[in-house]
Amino acid sequence: MSAMRIVTTRQQVRALRDEVASRGGRIGFVPTMGALHAGHLSLVERARRSCDTVVASVFVNPLQFGPGEDFERYPRDREGDAARLAAAGADVSWFAEVEDMYAPDHCSYVVQEGPALDLEGAARPTHFRGVLTVVLKLLNVLRPAQLFLGRKDYQQTVVIRRMVRDLDLETEVVVCPTVREPGGLAMSSRNAYLRPDERKRACVLWQAIEATQRAHAEGERDPERLERILRSPLEACPGLTLEYAVVRDGETLQPLRGPVERGVCLVAARLGAARLIDNGLLPAAAPDPVLDPAQWAARLQTDG
Amino acid sequence: MSAMRIVTTRQQVRALRDEVASRGGRIGFVPTMGALHAGHLSLVERARRSCDTVVASVFVNPLQFGPGEDFERYPRDREGDAARLAAAGADVSWFAEVEDMYAPDHCSYVVQEGPALDLEGAARPTHFRGVLTVVLKLLNVLRPAQLFLGRKDYQQTVVIRRMVRDLDLETEVVVCPTVREPGGLAMSSRNAYLRPDERKRACVLWQAIEATQRAHAEGERDPERLERILRSPLEACPGLTLEYAVVRDGETLQPLRGPVERGVCLVAARLGAARLIDNGLLPAAAPDPVLDPAQWAARLQTDG
Repeated sequence: MSAMRIVTTRQQVRALRDEVASRGGRIGFVPTMGALHAGHLSLVERARRSCDTVVASVFVNPLQFGPGEDFERYPRDREGDAARLAAAGADVSWFAEVEDMYAPDHCSYVVQEGPALDLEGAARPTHFRGVLTVVLKLLNVLRPAQLFLGRKDYQQTVVIRRMVRDLDLETEVVVCPTVREPGGLAMSSRNAYLRPDERKRACVLWQAIEATQRAHAEGERDPERLERILRSPLEACPGLTLEYAVVRDGETLQPLRGPVERGVCLVAARLGAARLIDNGLLPAAAPDPVLDPAQWAARLQTDG
Repeated sequence: MSAMRIVTTRQQVRALRDEVASRGGRIGFVPTMGALHAGHLSLVERARRSCDTVVASVFVNPLQFGPGEDFERYPRDREGDAARLAAAGADVSWFAEVEDMYAPDHCSYVVQEGPALDLEGAARPTHFRGVLTVVLKLLNVLRPAQLFLGRKDYQQTVVIRRMVRDLDLETEVVVCPTVREPGGLAMSSRNAYLRPDERKRACVLWQAIEATQRAHAEGERDPERLERILRSPLEACPGLTLEYAVVRDGETLQPLRGPVERGVCLVAARLGAARLIDNGLLPAAAPDPVLDPAQWAARLQTDG
């Protein structure tokens, strides 16, 4: 493992970018909000395979949190994150800072209609504005050849891919599989908000999605019946408040008329102090990787 | 005069950009909507002085016109524009096309609060969204070292400069003086909508601004009295419908409390079929260049 560089300012990042460009290198970029888990680190490993310089950013972006959301209590672990990124093979960690990223009178934003309006966009009205604005800024500063995103935030991948196309950003968006815990729970920094009993119950999101994928595999093509199969276990789960559970077009995120040949199941629910989202393609893609967190920790130790 | 290249697609522009970058060149960029006049051409000449490759774009951007505005009848003169750009010394003319610039399901936009909300932003609610979105796209494709804008569209220069800062675009915004006809009328493609008698009366915009600059030079510092001086000749002009005539902070465009040491007079009015805007700094900057259109035409002939 070579030494990982830590940078904090846009100026440092631009210098680094120009240095990589001058030797004809390719930058792979993994943007994160920190509190890193195996899902994030799988993105770093994937970037490692196709880029010679892997840059991960860690920035809890205030713009993408609404009033009353968890910006203040969002888990932060800078030292742990730096160690995990180094162990996973990142060349550079960009610990961005609010004061460097946003002028006090910052007032320009990227917004999106179409796929950004519904679902997370409806539940969190300024969320995608914040995500798109910060991602545009990060991309403009770093100019990576490839951008690696986890499929866990499915709508986010669609919305960012659309922005990259619409606003002429020259980066290839690579969407990577969701990494899951053994019970099927999608890895998420917000899982830290779950008590142990809630963590078990949270597996119902993935169980509901798998049940829908099975029904689709067995020939079910009616969108309403597929959505009923998706909703049913979620509505039956004690303590879980369902926000949405829908089957949509995988690119426009619009409702589908049958017969549903391809699509995506999208779920959002509250459980205890956490708001959880998950998704699964129809038909199911290759199985998502499953990793025991303890296993992962051991692997990092060995690699390091 | 060397031969000017004409390009129409983003792909051609990217190839050109990379070609200039590979030999360490500097691109100067003049974005226009065509129907070029001496104001535009002065930007090309200014770009010529600090950049080795001058690119002008000609694109009547549908996104920045509201419903019922003059998108359809906006003057278009592709051949004349190409000849004028070549004569003024542009190296490349980018005649952009709607189909190349916007996907049919384009849905990502740049918006701005702060200086974009009031004045033109209030009169034309989606105007700056369209301007900022297309300028971001043009800048992302071309990546010029310098961007040349005319002060005639004062608020636009403020809003674009702010976007460049907020969204980490790496171009220097150079704002150039308004070019005026002998009576003081600011050159504008929309002056073509004026009948000869209206064209004479339209000089009242600049007369009102000059009167305010004189009052300021003579010591007037009260914002309300300055605005009264600005409004008075405009309100007295037959057939002119005043939209706004204000004295504002030159950067935030917010109203000023006295004493007004520095600021900008901003005016918008309708006259016949035209909507006219103009502005002037407080204190007045160096006098704006004044050019008879016939003179300019002669100069182009000579240079060519």
